[in-house]
Amino acid sequence: MQEKKLSLLRFCYNHMMQDMIGPQGVSREEIVIMESRVAKAAKSLEDKRGEMAWRDLPYSQDDVVEDIIKTASDINNNFDHFVLLGIGGSALGPLAVHRAMKPTYYNELSKEDRKGPKMFVEDNIDPDRIKSLLDVLDIKRTVFCVISKSGATAETMAQTMIISQMLKETYYGDIGKHFIMITDQEKGNLNIIAKKENCKTFHIPRGVGGRFSQLSSVGLLPAAVCGIDIKMLLKGAAAMDKQCASEDVWKNPAGMGALLQVQYMKKGRNISVMMPYIDGFRYIADWYAQLWAESLGKRIDNDGYVVFSGQTPVKSLGVTDQHSQLQLYVEGPHDKVITFIRTDKFRNDFTIPNAYPEIDDISFLGGHTLSELINVEQESTEFALYKAGRPSQTIYLPEISEYTLGQLLYFFELETAFVGELLNINAFDQPGVEESKNAAYAVLGKAGFEEKRKELSEKEKLNKLLQF
Amino acid sequence: MQEKKLSLLRFCYNHMMQDMIGPQGVSREEIVIMESRVAKAAKSLEDKRGEMAWRDLPYSQDDVVEDIIKTASDINNNFDHFVLLGIGGSALGPLAVHRAMKPTYYNELSKEDRKGPKMFVEDNIDPDRIKSLLDVLDIKRTVFCVISKSGATAETMAQTMIISQMLKETYYGDIGKHFIMITDQEKGNLNIIAKKENCKTFHIPRGVGGRFSQLSSVGLLPAAVCGIDIKMLLKGAAAMDKQCASEDVWKNPAGMGALLQVQYMKKGRNISVMMPYIDGFRYIADWYAQLWAESLGKRIDNDGYVVFSGQTPVKSLGVTDQHSQLQLYVEGPHDKVITFIRTDKFRNDFTIPNAYPEIDDISFLGGHTLSELINVEQESTEFALYKAGRPSQTIYLPEISEYTLGQLLYFFELETAFVGELLNINAFDQPGVEESKNAAYAVLGKAGFEEKRKELSEKEKLNKLLQF
Repeated sequence: MQEKKLSLLRFCYNHMMQDMIGPQGVSREEIVIMESRVAKAAKSLEDKRGEMAWRDLPYSQDDVVEDIIKTASDINNNFDHFVLLGIGGSALGPLAVHRAMKPTYYNELSKEDRKGPKMFVEDNIDPDRIKSLLDVLDIKRTVFCVISKSGATAETMAQTMIISQMLKETYYGDIGKHFIMITDQEKGNLNIIAKKENCKTFHIPRGVGGRFSQLSSVGLLPAAVCGIDIKMLLKGAAAMDKQCASEDVWKNPAGMGALLQVQYMKKGRNISVMMPYIDGFRYIADWYAQLWAESLGKRIDNDGYVVFSGQTPVKSLGVTDQHSQLQLYVEGPHDKVITFIRTDKFRNDFTIPNAYPEIDDISFLGGHTLSELINVEQESTEFALYKAGRPSQTIYLPEISEYTLGQLLYFFELETAFVGELLNINAFDQPGVEESKNAAYAVLGKAGFEEKRKELSEKEKLNKLLQF
Repeated sequence: MQEKKLSLLRFCYNHMMQDMIGPQGVSREEIVIMESRVAKAAKSLEDKRGEMAWRDLPYSQDDVVEDIIKTASDINNNFDHFVLLGIGGSALGPLAVHRAMKPTYYNELSKEDRKGPKMFVEDNIDPDRIKSLLDVLDIKRTVFCVISKSGATAETMAQTMIISQMLKETYYGDIGKHFIMITDQEKGNLNIIAKKENCKTFHIPRGVGGRFSQLSSVGLLPAAVCGIDIKMLLKGAAAMDKQCASEDVWKNPAGMGALLQVQYMKKGRNISVMMPYIDGFRYIADWYAQLWAESLGKRIDNDGYVVFSGQTPVKSLGVTDQHSQLQLYVEGPHDKVITFIRTDKFRNDFTIPNAYPEIDDISFLGGHTLSELINVEQESTEFALYKAGRPSQTIYLPEISEYTLGQLLYFFELETAFVGELLNINAFDQPGVEESKNAAYAVLGKAGFEEKRKELSEKEKLNKLLQF
């Protein structure tokens, strides 16, 4: 029990507060005034739990998890390459967890050292990238995992059609064992294709949108294939769910996190910088960026008012981006909130040898460890922001493990849902992407989009061709 | 000549204008009023050319280029792995050019197919990442290229000290051929180390700051090692320099680009989204992010006024981020300018086969190519932004080549310098990063930072330990 308690992540918000950073900060009074709103949001989220199947993913998947683990083991025994075909929520979560838990250069390890197939997450349709992928794959030793809830995602379906044809040309037929489909429970084209090709299929429960799907089979199968402990991932998520059960904002990290961000949005901070000081967590920032952007970027609120809400997520990486973005964070506009993620314990460490003791300018580094150095750099960045009166908050992972990662993912999901409640918007739809989809359908000649095609050519007439 | 003319990139700004997108746009009148300011900025930049050695990198390096090409060939003959140790400007440019020009999965190709050593750009000090690197390297077949202008960058020097020790333990001595140093012309620790270890050294000319160093040996050596045509890269930059020589904003793409961004900043658009629809260009967006952020994020202008200037760069990637960020771009706050980069001609292509003609929902994709699909998606995103009254601009590359890439890099460098002039700030310093550096020195015990150490512990007393 002691062990488990120790591995709960800590969320520290000192440097968000006026007491600490001065007039730009959020005051304790603001929080007190908002306490009842957070309580109401907490209650509302609890009441709507039935509609939000993603909330229950940590508890509801015992059978699925066993199936996933068995399937992952079969894949591992029969294939050398695992290629995920998906985009957006279907790719960002799997990629983030893979990079967080496995070695940076995983794919370049030998098969024995990897203890899993090579992993490729293909979330784009650039033909040069697909060519490069095919140049390094042995297609006969590859399983393709197609993820699309609707089965209508143009990019993923285009990839699938190309691969399907390629496999058929290679095998003259039976290609089912090279495909795994993850899609909606009933409807959609992937179910039709899966039936036709006789593929193993996993289903995404209703009430689990793309960006909230990482703890469903979407994220769990690719993780399990590489030996990531998905049961602990789910346990971590459950622990965070429990930790965020209170209606009291002072006892609810997701509620407090959401409240602080909302107050900062109201003060004009329209940018949320996610800056892990853990190299493998750079894709956690990518995953967060989708969650935050798609959930909160909304034109209309729940009462029909035009609000143009949202805070733009910026992916940053410590230490690297200290040498790229810190100048702006410290001296630029007062328009940002910075979130650091760090760990008390890296999985490896190196002591810096005093290799050139005659050079004073660098010899002070000798004897320190790299883990010390990276964490000192995070504290120094926090200090520079503090001196400039700019807010930051820090999430501490006692260690990098499936358990802490599960907590972290669930924390961000729940915080996002809380912000949606506090802003009175629907955090679970994405009406703004339809226009672009429909325009693409029109140009590509999909039936039923003739009117849109006309609209596009009308627009082209306005084009003044201003260019160099 | 005709061929060369065809391969000039096109910068199209229709969708930035009020005529096209409505009231949120920049009007032609605004541009006319600002014409004289751009002319003044152009003249000023030309007058200061002597102080800005980066402007002349396309012309001034004939001897260096020959040396680089010879060195690159030696590396190629003697080593299998090329590891770049550097951070910020010393890493972002080399990485961006490598990923733009070479196959996505370059490192996983066989040596014959790669035609160059495996490439690793190590711009972080996370010990888990360093461990993973060392696990996949054969250190005896590796050359380490250390890049730091000052030779005092703590992260790079820590890496260097670790590697140096490791090589000495392996070889009991002569390690010079495993190191290449790129640093300042005279001063700095890397010159001392280079002399001691007897390493090949390249120098960064005075007047070339880190973020403007990609066209110096910093970027050219790592590029040449992988067979990238660095002469054409420089020729492309020279072509863009020529194209931007005019004081007439209507004839100067960098001047026009800068003017439009400045007008949008003044209208409250504090976010610049860089969104290439070329997968390999994702790191071009990273490189741009440093250039834009560090150059323009400034507290004080040239007249001493407190301005807190700057526009936050956001790295985005088409098509991928349509499924992550587009909802926010279309429906969120009116706080962004979007820049697309696309190409008329990918290096490879695939036709999508009509693999499932019985499924209407996807069969319309059959017969189209991937290059068609990705470009249609870009146009559809532009259309959705247009419908929502939001500005975008597009840079068209007639092809992906060293020549067009050189143009693009130089365009952004010059545009940044223009914005600096128009905002009346110093685009070439970074005073805001000192505080963080000094704090790190203080904690790590560097001599001379005792006062800062006291200040840090004073601050800690304020800390209310607000955390979960």
